Amino acid sequence: MAEELVLHEDPRSGNCYKIRLTAALLGKPVERRSYDILRGETRTPAFLSQVNSNGRIPVLQVGTRFLPESNAACWYLAEGTPLVPADAFDRADVLRWMFFEQYSHEPNIATLRFWLLYVGEGNLTAHQRDQIMAKRAGGEAALALMEDHLATRDWFVGDRVSLADIILFAYTHLCEAGGFRLGEHPAVCRWLRRICALPGFVAMDDR
Amino acid sequence: MAEELVLHEDPRSGNCYKIRLTAALLGKPVERRSYDILRGETRTPAFLSQVNSNGRIPVLQVGTRFLPESNAACWYLAEGTPLVPADAFDRADVLRWMFFEQYSHEPNIATLRFWLLYVGEGNLTAHQRDQIMAKRAGGEAALALMEDHLATRDWFVGDRVSLADIILFAYTHLCEAGGFRLGEHPAVCRWLRRICALPGFVAMDDR
Repeated sequence: MAEELVLHEDPRSGNCYKIRLTAALLGKPVERRSYDILRGETRTPAFLSQVNSNGRIPVLQVGTRFLPESNAACWYLAEGTPLVPADAFDRADVLRWMFFEQYSHEPNIATLRFWLLYVGEGNLTAHQRDQIMAKRAGGEAALALMEDHLATRDWFVGDRVSLADIILFAYTHLCEAGGFRLGEHPAVCRWLRRICALPGFVAMDDR
Repeated sequence: MAEELVLHEDPRSGNCYKIRLTAALLGKPVERRSYDILRGETRTPAFLSQVNSNGRIPVLQVGTRFLPESNAACWYLAEGTPLVPADAFDRADVLRWMFFEQYSHEPNIATLRFWLLYVGEGNLTAHQRDQIMAKRAGGEAALALMEDHLATRDWFVGDRVSLADIILFAYTHLCEAGGFRLGEHPAVCRWLRRICALPGFVAMDDR
């Protein structure tokens, strides 16, 4: 019998949404427990001692074990399904895009969305304001790389949807909340629509 | 017959060293091609058109295909070997530490080493200097999390060495060049010595 899956999440987080979307596309039931990160609900002694000692979400609970890092949680759900390719090079290439997402995409695109949408530009620290231009440039470069890749392909790896697409969808489809303009990236827009049309697709709650 | 492996690298990069160390521990031969990133050798038209259109190294060439992202390249080499656990949760847990490394460790610890050792503190831009304190704090938090995890364990996942250890070793063992103090993290130091003692271990060229 499969172990019970519980997602410890903030529903406004794209990193949490990735896991729900992966589970939904695969038809795997996941129980959801919500925390408000802006109210410090992932910094309580109970959360730190039981769920994640560094106070971050998402965490996927598998039975009595806890798995932080959104992309690792998605891999756990998707391994052995058609979302992870059978070919060894393609499988590593899916991970290549997942590491690109966490290194070059999320720290720029997701952070600007969080700052502008939830913190508010007027509430940013001077140090945060100093980083806006660099994060804007980094996010634009990530979107340009995606546009270039998708100009001649329907999906990031091979000729069908993979976990790479799901991971990159999460914050790309929310990027305008961080001040990026999707209209400048037509191949990215067509790819976003392909994902929204997948059987089992679920939208993020707060769109 | 296995496809020929070529590592496009700068020998001073810990991200490149990870791949060589993984290959060495597994006894897999990899041909090395060196580029000097400080001289722009990964920004030439030939490199951009043939190896990686975003001008970054490392790239692992597998026959005629190219795989960017150091941790994806290591996964390609290690999948199916004892460095990637047979248990599905443990396998995802290895990826959890690999994503932690690229999100919370490398951008702080490796970047400060690059700035202080190769760029030189006096040559940093004002924007880079403004980031030093935040990167110092982020790197210290990453090392503290590792110290806490290793206080009761010999290895990051399960009871034997895995790819998670190799990935985290690369920039942790170089962290003092970025101004971090290994002596404050005794469990991390014992773990570093365990890795150096592994059969097949190779040191980084420029230590």
